[in-house]
Amino acid sequence: MPVRAIAFDVFGTLVDWRSAIARAFEASGLDDDPDALADDWRARYVPILAEVNNGARPWANFDELHLVTLEALLSERGLGLSIDARLRLVAAWHRLDPWPDVPAGLEALRRRHITATLSNGHVALLVDLARHGDLRFDCVISAELARAYKPAPEVYLTGASLLGVRADELMLVAAHPWDLKSARAAGLATAFVNRPFEYGPGSPAREDPDADHSVGDLHELAARLDG
Amino acid sequence: MPVRAIAFDVFGTLVDWRSAIARAFEASGLDDDPDALADDWRARYVPILAEVNNGARPWANFDELHLVTLEALLSERGLGLSIDARLRLVAAWHRLDPWPDVPAGLEALRRRHITATLSNGHVALLVDLARHGDLRFDCVISAELARAYKPAPEVYLTGASLLGVRADELMLVAAHPWDLKSARAAGLATAFVNRPFEYGPGSPAREDPDADHSVGDLHELAARLDG
Repeated sequence: MPVRAIAFDVFGTLVDWRSAIARAFEASGLDDDPDALADDWRARYVPILAEVNNGARPWANFDELHLVTLEALLSERGLGLSIDARLRLVAAWHRLDPWPDVPAGLEALRRRHITATLSNGHVALLVDLARHGDLRFDCVISAELARAYKPAPEVYLTGASLLGVRADELMLVAAHPWDLKSARAAGLATAFVNRPFEYGPGSPAREDPDADHSVGDLHELAARLDG
Repeated sequence: MPVRAIAFDVFGTLVDWRSAIARAFEASGLDDDPDALADDWRARYVPILAEVNNGARPWANFDELHLVTLEALLSERGLGLSIDARLRLVAAWHRLDPWPDVPAGLEALRRRHITATLSNGHVALLVDLARHGDLRFDCVISAELARAYKPAPEVYLTGASLLGVRADELMLVAAHPWDLKSARAAGLATAFVNRPFEYGPGSPAREDPDADHSVGDLHELAARLDG
């Protein structure tokens, strides 16, 4: 099937969350390793989304969930931080820099395909990230519009429905095999993009042999799809 | 209140539907005045949206509603047209040219404000129009996301909610006083942009003395907001 639209995971796939969040922890003055704090905060992301998806927690957006997981992190580590400082850390997720290939790579892919985000971040957060990084999408699609978080199938299917394409005409681009696997289960095409520094220099190696494409950056994907 | 985000009505406000639809009628070979057919088709828009909003008709997107209203128009005028030709006319709504000030005017407004569509057109239609006219928005917001059509207040409020701003921090830009009035009733700021040729050379004059701004084009609005 020809791919008509391309949807992008955002955190880790298009933007480098770890560097900015570690810098924000450093600026907070907390007496702990900023990289470790960033990794710890991010590790609490999948479990709390599962709580929302299984109904144990009411719908909440990323700002609200980031505040909850930050407070758990601080409490478990015995760290104190003013509410203003906590809100500054939550706001840091709105100003993450894109990986170097992303702004021009998105434009290359947009020439022949409809492009959209397909992220668990809420719409307002994705808009801030796109403006911060000068990223142009044809459409901002968020799990917020499905009122469920990836890997729930309705998020992927909502993306296809809103873009007016069949599921197999939509390709998800992501750095995370769990996301790609769930997209395939919902009927989407998939492309794995390797982000070897998502977790810093010692990041675990990842691959997805089941993806339709595996690439090193968005320019390589554009060349594959145009070739 | 400072305006943080600007939302745009699309049909008539940003794009010239009449010229393209009249050309599509001309190409269809129907033996009737193309401008009159375009105006007749468009006039059936507000009544059928009211049927959806009051529950007399189930939710349907613009492609579906355009087909229904086209078939009523053809039937009342005793005109026949193949299904392929009817679908080509419906598809013509996806390729409407922007008014001349719009591409650069949107960019000027985007420098200091979050920008979004806020249209009754469905997301996929708005994406096609933005790609056709090279219009850049930070976000595509549609009545489809509220499952109700303007002038229902939930459409305007869904726009503010998704953009993460209060209603009074969002400004609707439109050429239609009925749309602006309903936006104000929902708490939004408003700007009237005059489109004196929406209905061709003999268009009725319009104004909205209650709007926060009344301008001749988007560049004038950018100058007002930046000044």
